[in-house]
Amino acid sequence: MNFLMHILNILEIIEKKRDKKELTKEEIEYFIKGYTNGTIKDYQAAALLMAIYLNGMTKEETTNLSIAMANSGEILNLNSKGKIFVDKHSTGGVGDKVSLILLPLVASLGVPVAKMSGRGLGFTGGTVDKLESIPGYNVEITIQEFIKNIEKIGISMISQTGNLAPADKKIYALRDSISCVESIPLIASSIMSKKIASGAQKIVLDVTVGNGAFMKNIEDARKLAKTMIEIGKLANRETVCVLTNMDEPLGYAVGNNLEVIEAIKALNGQMPPDVKEVVLELGAYMLKLANLGDNISENKKKLLENIKNKRALNKFKELIQNQGGDVSYIDDISKFPKSRVVLEVRARKSGNVMRIPAEKIGKLACFLGAGREFMEDSVNDSVGIVLNKKVGDVVVEGDVLAVIHSEDSGKADCVRDELLDVIEIGEGNFEVKYVYDVDGF
Amino acid sequence: MNFLMHILNILEIIEKKRDKKELTKEEIEYFIKGYTNGTIKDYQAAALLMAIYLNGMTKEETTNLSIAMANSGEILNLNSKGKIFVDKHSTGGVGDKVSLILLPLVASLGVPVAKMSGRGLGFTGGTVDKLESIPGYNVEITIQEFIKNIEKIGISMISQTGNLAPADKKIYALRDSISCVESIPLIASSIMSKKIASGAQKIVLDVTVGNGAFMKNIEDARKLAKTMIEIGKLANRETVCVLTNMDEPLGYAVGNNLEVIEAIKALNGQMPPDVKEVVLELGAYMLKLANLGDNISENKKKLLENIKNKRALNKFKELIQNQGGDVSYIDDISKFPKSRVVLEVRARKSGNVMRIPAEKIGKLACFLGAGREFMEDSVNDSVGIVLNKKVGDVVVEGDVLAVIHSEDSGKADCVRDELLDVIEIGEGNFEVKYVYDVDGF
Repeated sequence: MNFLMHILNILEIIEKKRDKKELTKEEIEYFIKGYTNGTIKDYQAAALLMAIYLNGMTKEETTNLSIAMANSGEILNLNSKGKIFVDKHSTGGVGDKVSLILLPLVASLGVPVAKMSGRGLGFTGGTVDKLESIPGYNVEITIQEFIKNIEKIGISMISQTGNLAPADKKIYALRDSISCVESIPLIASSIMSKKIASGAQKIVLDVTVGNGAFMKNIEDARKLAKTMIEIGKLANRETVCVLTNMDEPLGYAVGNNLEVIEAIKALNGQMPPDVKEVVLELGAYMLKLANLGDNISENKKKLLENIKNKRALNKFKELIQNQGGDVSYIDDISKFPKSRVVLEVRARKSGNVMRIPAEKIGKLACFLGAGREFMEDSVNDSVGIVLNKKVGDVVVEGDVLAVIHSEDSGKADCVRDELLDVIEIGEGNFEVKYVYDVDGF
Repeated sequence: MNFLMHILNILEIIEKKRDKKELTKEEIEYFIKGYTNGTIKDYQAAALLMAIYLNGMTKEETTNLSIAMANSGEILNLNSKGKIFVDKHSTGGVGDKVSLILLPLVASLGVPVAKMSGRGLGFTGGTVDKLESIPGYNVEITIQEFIKNIEKIGISMISQTGNLAPADKKIYALRDSISCVESIPLIASSIMSKKIASGAQKIVLDVTVGNGAFMKNIEDARKLAKTMIEIGKLANRETVCVLTNMDEPLGYAVGNNLEVIEAIKALNGQMPPDVKEVVLELGAYMLKLANLGDNISENKKKLLENIKNKRALNKFKELIQNQGGDVSYIDDISKFPKSRVVLEVRARKSGNVMRIPAEKIGKLACFLGAGREFMEDSVNDSVGIVLNKKVGDVVVEGDVLAVIHSEDSGKADCVRDELLDVIEIGEGNFEVKYVYDVDGF
């Protein structure tokens, strides 16, 4: 009965997915269009998302969802005199300051960088919040300025604009308020829709795995990677996925300006081993995709060279200055504002650090004010946690395990007790792997 | 971390059900309270309902949900000089005019009837819409008048008030707009919450099974029945379930005043066999639960007697008059308004009627205007479909299969074509069962 079709559609779509059936391209487009323009309601989208969460999606459905979300807004067409735009994205983590280091680094080697990032939500931080902790830095410039900046200095890093994949923005916020975040098709399509819309021709994805990542185990991470690579293929965007360890926070610092400080130190050559390994692996593949070198270990050498000769640091300073930031902070990190309370957490026993659960550390940093519980919340630039030990390190009773930066001494005490509870010290010798796997090339 | 508890609660509840875990009484109460007062949003409830739909609920969870929904509003305390209130409820169907016949009938035998009904939605009709097709009949009287009416004449039939189980009202409407209707825990708790809130001490449930019912097969219907009997037990309301056939519409008429006319004829002794069997079975158990007779076949005789001697019809007329309805329509059914177009549907071949799919017939009646697609829609009193043949009947090419009552000849033509398509005529001899099973006593 055709005369009933128009009113039954979204109900039928929900019903199909509820009953584990495959949605067609047209049904997915109908949902995305209707949800974007408001004719399909939040509660209907919520029911459909929960059904997708529980019953999954095929690769075709996930690709169609990504493309439909990309098409829900503007699609950028990046083109810089034949140069290949390679985008980089992480599936999120705790202490993840990779973009701050890696992007100026590859830009200094001639890869044009047009990076749009998000804000932090829940226990994961966001690159935009970190950039904003540099006084004056403006993440909200227009697309025109964004493109002009890239043409001028080869790099710009801004906040994701409302015109790009607005459907993803709406769905992402909804998923967060209905416990539907950790779903492979929903994560994959969210990431890929933004990448497709933001105009990158090639994409390197940092797929994080472990306690502080959406993907808790390597099998799920591989599935997510495979899904995104497949979407990339179908959408004509070559995609490489690097699977990295997110059991413990990346590097030492968790918190906005604390992470910026760690990134500046890294660009000055002082890179924590895990950060270094992840930055080099991702960077080497970015260069490869940009046709700037096929040999991964050669590419890593080029990257290290541009750390050494400070070209990466200078590119970072150019970026900051170009977007209104005060470069004197980069030259003198002691200028960054500090929290009122700085509290050391000392080990109560000796042994090996067995576990620093990233999610918990992220939640504690969030509780101190570094992150937000709701999208409307503001964040505090200077609070957070700086680890002094990493998993695998030897600890002697009384050693500083971490330093808490807080505006409130009661909160600091509370976080200290929690840290002592969750950082496991025991017996055991092991090697920690930071990069697990690369897929998609 | 206790300080995070208050904001995480509904997310954690959704997450638990999403992950197939059992919700506690406190979590269910928290959800119902929060959703009723609006602090928990429609989209969060939608996600939770879809998770319940897909992952189910234990009997304890379903009972707790029923009681929490009952407690979300007023709880009536019916008490009429030691008489036992026995409520009757059907899980819904097409052409279901049982309440219109059965309730005056048992009231005429001394069972006090305090019946609150719903409006029709989708392909199922509602007793309230049918009652309203009797000119003057007022379904929206106050609870005080409702109780006064029962004291005066032993029966009142009204629309469910907003104060009874408001959480159920909200959840029911939401389920309908997110394709989460056919779920045993949600159907069971919706029905039982209203029954608990409306004060009946004992409950007889007509659990419909088949194409036009929520329960498509006897196994699911048994599960639903067992669930409601269990809830009744735990909530101290003795509950009997009668499983009845809803593969084809009940009786011949589908449509508001068309069904009222059929009910009036039935009260005059002209009962279609299926209607008769269902009315007698339900009625016999209502008398039993009301302590008015333990012998089911004796009870059926008493019921038949009060049809014969017109006491049931007179009770119906008392009910109509008492609530402002024009009784002259009951005495002269030709007074009911008729549709502009009355179109006969004639068989194109000879054989046995194999199938008259109730859901499709309900949808076609709805399309003609007898039902509503959205709760705000109004219904037309006189349109609908009157079958002339039932499953098992012999048909000769050219026989009238059904009569369409419509305001629009285009729609009527369209419905005729559909009816000829869906009413199956073939070869085969079989007996149709109208009552499958009784459980709970």
